[in-house]
Amino acid sequence: MTDPLRPGSDPLPSEAGAVDLLGILAYGALVAFDRLADDARRAPTWAERVHVVQLAARQASHVETVTTRLTALGANVLSATAPFRRAFDAFHTHTTPKDWLEGLVWSYVGHGFASDFYREIAAFVDPETRAVVLAVLAEGVDDEFVIETVRAGIAADPKVAGRLALWGRRLVGEALSQAQRVAADRDALTGLLTGPGVSTGRDLGAMHRLFSQLVEKHTVRMRTLGLQA
Amino acid sequence: MTDPLRPGSDPLPSEAGAVDLLGILAYGALVAFDRLADDARRAPTWAERVHVVQLAARQASHVETVTTRLTALGANVLSATAPFRRAFDAFHTHTTPKDWLEGLVWSYVGHGFASDFYREIAAFVDPETRAVVLAVLAEGVDDEFVIETVRAGIAADPKVAGRLALWGRRLVGEALSQAQRVAADRDALTGLLTGPGVSTGRDLGAMHRLFSQLVEKHTVRMRTLGLQA
Repeated sequence: MTDPLRPGSDPLPSEAGAVDLLGILAYGALVAFDRLADDARRAPTWAERVHVVQLAARQASHVETVTTRLTALGANVLSATAPFRRAFDAFHTHTTPKDWLEGLVWSYVGHGFASDFYREIAAFVDPETRAVVLAVLAEGVDDEFVIETVRAGIAADPKVAGRLALWGRRLVGEALSQAQRVAADRDALTGLLTGPGVSTGRDLGAMHRLFSQLVEKHTVRMRTLGLQA
Repeated sequence: MTDPLRPGSDPLPSEAGAVDLLGILAYGALVAFDRLADDARRAPTWAERVHVVQLAARQASHVETVTTRLTALGANVLSATAPFRRAFDAFHTHTTPKDWLEGLVWSYVGHGFASDFYREIAAFVDPETRAVVLAVLAEGVDDEFVIETVRAGIAADPKVAGRLALWGRRLVGEALSQAQRVAADRDALTGLLTGPGVSTGRDLGAMHRLFSQLVEKHTVRMRTLGLQA
């Protein structure tokens, strides 16, 4: 496939994959920043509002960290993020939380799903990029905060559980659909998973296994929240 | 006046003023965070979007810095911010930028006006609080970035200047009205400016002089943007 934003360049497959992965991370962090900034406004208490604002700020610093690594690889953050904007923007538009708890579940489920996906890919990029990616993923959402708050929300109003369970299913469905779109579009990225020279389109088996794992891990996360996946 | 959120406590006037000033700063930083997070979405380029996201993150760190100082003073950030929320929320609601340039002017004009106001008060609080306040104010908006971008916007479309000039007048009008409300409500704060034992309501002269200075400095800022105040 051709990439109009990187004309003429012909990086090694693993390097192109690293740039793709960093591009995803950079744009994902921006989208997460927007989501958390919105969530903060809905926070029921001052402490929760400030905490979520700090989580948003963390995403802002991820954008910087990832951009630094992209620059070191001789890549441009604008070109690196371009191929993934449509998928992220679509995910963002199709999954707008209606309230505080839905926002928290969005962050937890979305970050968890994305992290599992990116970690698989990170195993195959150069060690320095891998270190950056893992550091960024480790510093994502405050899982304990989300788990505690959602569980407390369900305890306060058990009806909430059914609605949030549905919400989680919608989130993972939309995430899968966007991840599949990205996998189908970006050979450099998925080539890392399927091995060199194997076109992703042709290694549907490997991709299928990966996505099954992602769904399994999602199920565990939903259970941790006290929700049915 | 009574403060339902700080019952029983009877701090020294200058200490109560310091807590008030820090409370204003904390809530102001949160409001600025929200504004900048919105502005970032309207940014016309990736670089501008990321830059404004970083400015928002800076506001998040200000909330932390100020909270630490409040805690050191034995004050609670929730109680300290409570008296100022109405004024800030009103300002925020009455001045919603319609586009990218209006958002930048909002940040520059709003931050400038607020900083001038807070600096006057900071002169009278304890040295440690003063240091915190001045450090936070010094790290506000990226003035050069705003000035350059607004001037470029006017150069590209001179009609913009008239609309932004009107916008600047609305901003300063609303800022004055909210600042006056705060000054009238909070004796601890304005007592610092007018001297101990003088009720602010009675020292209208001092307040009037302060507000005239604020408007003068606003005029200079508007001129710097290439706008008529």
